[in-house]
Amino acid sequence: MLYTVYTLFPDLVRPWTQEAILGRAAEAGHLKFNVRNLRDHAQNKWNRVDESPFGGGAGMVIRVDVAARAVAEAKAMAPAPDEIILLSPAGEPFSQTIAEELSEKQHLCMLCGRYEGFDARLEPLVTREISIGDYVLMGGEIAALTVIEATARLIPGVLGDQESHEQDSFSTGLLDYPEYTKPNLFEGQGIPEVLKSGHHGKVAQWRRERALERTFYRRPDLLEKVTLSQTDLDFLARLKTKAET
Amino acid sequence: MLYTVYTLFPDLVRPWTQEAILGRAAEAGHLKFNVRNLRDHAQNKWNRVDESPFGGGAGMVIRVDVAARAVAEAKAMAPAPDEIILLSPAGEPFSQTIAEELSEKQHLCMLCGRYEGFDARLEPLVTREISIGDYVLMGGEIAALTVIEATARLIPGVLGDQESHEQDSFSTGLLDYPEYTKPNLFEGQGIPEVLKSGHHGKVAQWRRERALERTFYRRPDLLEKVTLSQTDLDFLARLKTKAET
Repeated sequence: MLYTVYTLFPDLVRPWTQEAILGRAAEAGHLKFNVRNLRDHAQNKWNRVDESPFGGGAGMVIRVDVAARAVAEAKAMAPAPDEIILLSPAGEPFSQTIAEELSEKQHLCMLCGRYEGFDARLEPLVTREISIGDYVLMGGEIAALTVIEATARLIPGVLGDQESHEQDSFSTGLLDYPEYTKPNLFEGQGIPEVLKSGHHGKVAQWRRERALERTFYRRPDLLEKVTLSQTDLDFLARLKTKAET
Repeated sequence: MLYTVYTLFPDLVRPWTQEAILGRAAEAGHLKFNVRNLRDHAQNKWNRVDESPFGGGAGMVIRVDVAARAVAEAKAMAPAPDEIILLSPAGEPFSQTIAEELSEKQHLCMLCGRYEGFDARLEPLVTREISIGDYVLMGGEIAALTVIEATARLIPGVLGDQESHEQDSFSTGLLDYPEYTKPNLFEGQGIPEVLKSGHHGKVAQWRRERALERTFYRRPDLLEKVTLSQTDLDFLARLKTKAET
């Protein structure tokens, strides 16, 4: 996968492409990153990318012609971008489902705004607008990194044998079950006995029940979208009875 | 505001505290950052922080005793942390409302997991668990930066006069209206006439209607949580009629 990121602050994004899992996957050739400075497309002697908004108001708006030149540059890359993504709080809410869809692509190009964002005439030039949540950030960079991390980890080879994504929160549609490791005893709290039993079936059942339980108490909205077995439904029915008494 | 971040990858987080708006606000004394390496609390000769999970399965789990020493260190800082936040996909969904609440605090301490996350016995030691969205990342660092950016920009003095947060998406409860700037004409697309009229009342009405319209078409779920005037409701009723015909 090739990721191209246009930003006014490449030094915020670049370290992420050189360290930890992403850096290792880039070195191994599973991922490739282009982090570009949007300002290189300013084409005026002050390298200015922003102007005051028409109609007044605080803040500056990034010029559409500057962004359009970045889009044109990205379109000339090989492979051509499958998606040109504008990160914006007004975009489609990002989800694990979108991450899975995007992880199948070959080249994702992302445009990070700053200030009051981009001139609205950029919208027809992008293929989608994505928001990572209902909160306002200082720019699109964190959202671009979110799309990168969420998609890259689904690409074969990126996570090592020691890592996994098959049991994650959201890949089952449920919150993750609690994990425990050494020490055996911490401030009077031990490890649930079943996890030390060596009985795989019982461990799997215990984990499934804890995932259901956590989701039931913390995020009941998620249960509506999940495929549940009869055993799951029976367990949830018992939880409901317990919660009501 | 003091932000303390515990991470296994401080080099991913530190540049964000030194550049752009956050860096400038830190230099001006509006914000202060402690970015600490969780590994400094390993207390074994290999600086090892993680172990295999009890019960088996792929991935490694961060030891609770390591995280607990970081929490104890943070608690000894002045001012003491108002919140000790575990970033986790199983946490409470982050929102602009939570950002506003947290922006009133004096010290936020954040713990970033990696691998399969922390031993579950860490949960009683934190004051809250936060998730930035229903997708899986490679660690808690992006989520910590999300909490930092979303809260810091609400702190007086952090955004300059040129910036603003009062008209943002979500601070009104609606998506933001579209912005336009120079050039006047871009690939045949001009600027909406009203924005060049100099008529403040008409500009304000146009922007409100565009914000309502965008929210109606893209995120109708947001309209249920917003306080709307009779004028807003009349406008939305006309949109609904139009959408149904």
